[in-house]
Amino acid sequence: MNIAVAQSGGPTCAINASLVGVFKESLKEPDIDAIFGSVNGIEGLIQNHMIDLKTLIFTNDDMELLRQTPSTVLGSCRYKLPDWHEDASVYEQILKTLEQRQIGAFFYIGGNDSMDTVQKLSAFLAERGSDIRIIGIPKTIDNDLCVTDHTPGFGSAAKYVAATLHEIIRDSSVYSIPSVTIVEIMGRHAGWLTASSAVLHQLGEAAPHLIYVPESDFSLDKFFRDVRQEMAKHKAVIVAVSEGIEVPEGVQSGVVDNFGHKYLSGIGSYLERAVREEIGCKVRSIELNVMQRCSSHLCSRTDIDESEAIGAAGVRCALRGETGKVMVFRRLNDMPYTVTIETAEAALCANREKLLPKEYINAAGNNITDEALRYFMPLIQGELTIQMHHGVPAHFMIQESLLK
Amino acid sequence: MNIAVAQSGGPTCAINASLVGVFKESLKEPDIDAIFGSVNGIEGLIQNHMIDLKTLIFTNDDMELLRQTPSTVLGSCRYKLPDWHEDASVYEQILKTLEQRQIGAFFYIGGNDSMDTVQKLSAFLAERGSDIRIIGIPKTIDNDLCVTDHTPGFGSAAKYVAATLHEIIRDSSVYSIPSVTIVEIMGRHAGWLTASSAVLHQLGEAAPHLIYVPESDFSLDKFFRDVRQEMAKHKAVIVAVSEGIEVPEGVQSGVVDNFGHKYLSGIGSYLERAVREEIGCKVRSIELNVMQRCSSHLCSRTDIDESEAIGAAGVRCALRGETGKVMVFRRLNDMPYTVTIETAEAALCANREKLLPKEYINAAGNNITDEALRYFMPLIQGELTIQMHHGVPAHFMIQESLLK
Repeated sequence: MNIAVAQSGGPTCAINASLVGVFKESLKEPDIDAIFGSVNGIEGLIQNHMIDLKTLIFTNDDMELLRQTPSTVLGSCRYKLPDWHEDASVYEQILKTLEQRQIGAFFYIGGNDSMDTVQKLSAFLAERGSDIRIIGIPKTIDNDLCVTDHTPGFGSAAKYVAATLHEIIRDSSVYSIPSVTIVEIMGRHAGWLTASSAVLHQLGEAAPHLIYVPESDFSLDKFFRDVRQEMAKHKAVIVAVSEGIEVPEGVQSGVVDNFGHKYLSGIGSYLERAVREEIGCKVRSIELNVMQRCSSHLCSRTDIDESEAIGAAGVRCALRGETGKVMVFRRLNDMPYTVTIETAEAALCANREKLLPKEYINAAGNNITDEALRYFMPLIQGELTIQMHHGVPAHFMIQESLLK
Repeated sequence: MNIAVAQSGGPTCAINASLVGVFKESLKEPDIDAIFGSVNGIEGLIQNHMIDLKTLIFTNDDMELLRQTPSTVLGSCRYKLPDWHEDASVYEQILKTLEQRQIGAFFYIGGNDSMDTVQKLSAFLAERGSDIRIIGIPKTIDNDLCVTDHTPGFGSAAKYVAATLHEIIRDSSVYSIPSVTIVEIMGRHAGWLTASSAVLHQLGEAAPHLIYVPESDFSLDKFFRDVRQEMAKHKAVIVAVSEGIEVPEGVQSGVVDNFGHKYLSGIGSYLERAVREEIGCKVRSIELNVMQRCSSHLCSRTDIDESEAIGAAGVRCALRGETGKVMVFRRLNDMPYTVTIETAEAALCANREKLLPKEYINAAGNNITDEALRYFMPLIQGELTIQMHHGVPAHFMIQESLLK
């Protein structure tokens, strides 16, 4: 049989590593012939836009290069499948592609929205009596997928956030006048990535002095009080804030994507203006923007290795005949860090979000507890030996025309 | 005799390497006893706030750690000395500190504003018949210092900008819909850092498709025309723009520092709004913010090694009896890259800015020529082996209380 793999949702540093995992494991299986890459996620299956990956990836060096290349080499999408009871036409198109190309298993690397696709598509195929298997491989820097201990891509994003905040602490501490630096970090409803900045406390840094996540209540009055308290103790106060904390209407840009998620941005500059007006000190806001999800040059080796492993595990799961499943990590131990890879129903992850546990947030709702550090620390450990080209990290590149 | 060293102006990845250069070279000189660090630049000399560096830096490992630590370990300032003919009181305070601590030479690591200090202070001391020597060690990510081929700190900033833009290209190319990504890069009047993003063309990237620097004329009409032209050729258009390009009044924040420089910010989000309104496509702006000056985890080894060497050369220059000088790089060859370190009058650098040569900008004023690449490429080559701690790059840290 042949298989197909696609990448979906927002870019991370680890999605290509999971692709490598699927590819490499499939090469080992005598039952698997062609390995197709579907261009732009599920859209490639709908439009029958597929690439034979064996014509793209030739050597172990290619795979190493792909492991260190951020984002999705096969493109991505934010396509939401309709309910097939209402409109099955797009499902028919997908089925046609799958049958025409003799694809026996499809692997979808993505977040909670992609697990919605895995669930719907596998249910549709089962109803049609098809034995084509659909398996979800998780990824998201948000770490908000249910069931799994953590998600591929999160560890690398957390490592970038921590290392960059560490450098921002150095940068902001140089002048003799008091200052406040506000760093805006991604996370719509779940504060995992913002909270992970607390790993710097493990290095003896007092900063970030304040950490605000969407899971705790936020008010400007309390924020000003918190900042003043920290300014009494520290010359340069560092604040880490999630893009998703609740502030008055109209601050966040409010553009809405196909899944109804608001595109958030602007909390940092909003709080910067608020501090300037209320406290009147030197203040700067910094948005880590897309760098936090694509800075592969500083990825976590733990994350990249695990992302490859969970892709490979997905192939073995499909070969066992399972479908409608998502691959998940189960943590057995923090130190020494030990995880196993298991399967769960995709339905348990689809369209749901896992929030930070209450015990990871301090009583004042403005910082992260030491208990959380035991969770975060193992995920950011280790580095890849990055292959450089002309002074910058090399990337695995596909001709733009192949993706058109 | 004793010596003193201070760091001034905006942080870079290389200022601590120059400090290591001064420190290490001084250790070799039997004539030099104490090596003082002046806290917060020239302010430390005025307030007699000095640290004996031999009580801080003990081992070669400490020096290695300092070389990979961004920003200024001794703090910084933006203090402008008055004309001493009008007000000599602050000069008297500095002289008192220098004499009381038996300091025979003072090294000031900084940009064009700091060279103003070197010039004034050395002229004042000469008039007073003092033989205390004042030597400037250049640094600035802006690369806008006259006389020298390039400045310490620039190569690391350029490497960060290029590597990050490379990752942003991957990130922005994933979706099937057309998009424009605008990356705002530091540079008030000189476009060196923005222009350096063109090194990606050497890697076969078409992006950045448009590069705007302050040295060429900018108009919104021409910008829209340029963007539309590139959108016809590329799905994801990448624009690199200097914070200092001229746009209508009121866009940039306009806060002014002690040297009369405007604190600029906002060009990226201004152009983002303009593209959204005029062209109506998906558009995002990204500000590289302070990360471009403090991301030591991705520094250029060429830059760090040169920054240490130019600090050491400053010590030898002072021991030869020179004063009022700035150390400069002279490039002998692009390939193989060869530079020597020479001296120049600090007056030639003080308060002046070196702009991009006309031949580095294309005829349309919207990109950078290949000729410029021969200049930029050698400066971003090589990496340090970064020492990690708990998963993030380790930093040399001084107790906050010592800097108070």
